[in-house]
Amino acid sequence: MEGFSNTPEPPYYAVIFTSILGDRRDGYDDMGSALVELAERQPGYLGIETTRGADGLGITVSYWNDEESILAWKQHTQHLLAQKNGIERWYDHYELRVAKVERAYKGPTGRSLG
Amino acid sequence: MEGFSNTPEPPYYAVIFTSILGDRRDGYDDMGSALVELAERQPGYLGIETTRGADGLGITVSYWNDEESILAWKQHTQHLLAQKNGIERWYDHYELRVAKVERAYKGPTGRSLG
Repeated sequence: MEGFSNTPEPPYYAVIFTSILGDRRDGYDDMGSALVELAERQPGYLGIETTRGADGLGITVSYWNDEESILAWKQHTQHLLAQKNGIERWYDHYELRVAKVERAYKGPTGRSLG
Repeated sequence: MEGFSNTPEPPYYAVIFTSILGDRRDGYDDMGSALVELAERQPGYLGIETTRGADGLGITVSYWNDEESILAWKQHTQHLLAQKNGIERWYDHYELRVAKVERAYKGPTGRSLG
């Protein structure tokens, strides 16, 4: 289904990126697209789910086979972002968490929560 | 900062809930508020980050001390949702993932990504 990641059976990894955009957004949309394209070409990439509400709070979760894939992707993204000085410029605040997915469910149908 | 969860040093747990709402939304907002209030009263609750974009895709991440806290919360929410038949009625599709947060960063300032 559009917007969802068709991830395999756990375990795998999630990078949870929560952010608030600041007023300076020049180049942000282009960089977002470039980062997603970069992720899609990385070994170990499983998918991405991303949304941003009217209040400016955004949550992007990318899914990865293992930590090595995340570290490789990080090196690529940091190189790209450093060129544009992006992450320090666009965001008022962000939180990034790397987590190991242990269980997963989907619905509606079957088991409904947790 | 508003919208962010002031989580402790890892490890702790994240419940990642990605969803698309359907057309039937009666009672949805009230239930969402009730579920958040219920979470906030649960032992082991650390915080919640939630947003939904104009395209209807929503991501809610709740943070918990441990798996026991998540299981206790799940029992409460399932009871509440069963009363309202909510989760099967409101969502066209959802994915729920339980993950152990191993590393966390924030910014801007300091280390910027992953």
